[in-house]
Amino acid sequence: MSTPRLTQQIAFLIEADKLKGVLRRTTLMDASRPENSAEHSWHLALTAIVLAEYAPGGVDILHVLRLVTVHDLVEIDAGDTFAYDTAGNETKAARERAAAERIFALLPDDQAAHVRDLWDEFEDRQTPEARFAHALDRLQPLLQNMEAGGGSWKTHGVGRADVLRRMAPLQTQLPDVWPFVLGVVDRFCELGAIVVEDGQ
Amino acid sequence: MSTPRLTQQIAFLIEADKLKGVLRRTTLMDASRPENSAEHSWHLALTAIVLAEYAPGGVDILHVLRLVTVHDLVEIDAGDTFAYDTAGNETKAARERAAAERIFALLPDDQAAHVRDLWDEFEDRQTPEARFAHALDRLQPLLQNMEAGGGSWKTHGVGRADVLRRMAPLQTQLPDVWPFVLGVVDRFCELGAIVVEDGQ
Repeated sequence: MSTPRLTQQIAFLIEADKLKGVLRRTTLMDASRPENSAEHSWHLALTAIVLAEYAPGGVDILHVLRLVTVHDLVEIDAGDTFAYDTAGNETKAARERAAAERIFALLPDDQAAHVRDLWDEFEDRQTPEARFAHALDRLQPLLQNMEAGGGSWKTHGVGRADVLRRMAPLQTQLPDVWPFVLGVVDRFCELGAIVVEDGQ
Repeated sequence: MSTPRLTQQIAFLIEADKLKGVLRRTTLMDASRPENSAEHSWHLALTAIVLAEYAPGGVDILHVLRLVTVHDLVEIDAGDTFAYDTAGNETKAARERAAAERIFALLPDDQAAHVRDLWDEFEDRQTPEARFAHALDRLQPLLQNMEAGGGSWKTHGVGRADVLRRMAPLQTQLPDVWPFVLGVVDRFCELGAIVVEDGQ
């Protein structure tokens, strides 16, 4: 009732369901629960559609949609690594590569290679689409934290310099949105939700 | 720190977060909790990428991604209407139209019209992309129920004829996947998770 190829594709789509159970450090905007990586990926796709006009010229937004749809699948095995977790980020690349090898291999070979190419492209940030997708992946948690009264910045005592380093891709990729980002960071520094280090 | 246009776009992206709190009758595949409409929308996008080869010739998969990303936003106000809820489906269209008018109007006028066009296109099922997106929107819950041991079919005592009517778009849109769908329905009829009515 199913070809071997379709059986592999269905197995991959079933495995992908687990991304709905991978919890991020950010919460929903009403702060009611942690956000999961599947709904985060959907929100990124919507953000790409709505903020497309701020992308550098020539960025193919539909390719961005492809990148954001697959970008977090490796977290099914590797988990979500908190952006400000230095130790976790040292091992992140190796954990995610191993995850990519197992999860994408559920697909037929040609599709496994295609999804791997999409994921590598997102990770390498060498194409205009990957750079724009990455910048959106920084903006979306900023909106989550902004609405959740400081969110993961506050919970984890994150400092201003770290937040600005994290947000830096927005300065080049969505320069028209950058003043808004700076405004949010300043506001949450004033509110004490982002730690202002000495000398800043 | 933000133009009026960007302020509207951000307000829309913030409102969209509420889709993560709209619960469907289907559960996650491990049956641990109800699925929400945001993560469902992401899963549809992934399904479109993986099963693109089964689409009728000429279907633009990237446009399908756009349609599935916005297709459930109206549920923020209208809620998810269970596919097999006859009374609910009688009022669904009016509730969803009212929702579309409020939610899309958060965007700048040109974008509100664009997203409304996408949603209308999905609902009207007149374009090849909308028909394919609709068929995927039937297949994804089938996979959820299949993995969750019968899921919402079993919980709500759904009958075979209703399931087959619901799945019918798959027969024309993904004919190569149809034998798999029929096989799943037959299996869950045998297991007693789908009700087999007299004379079937």
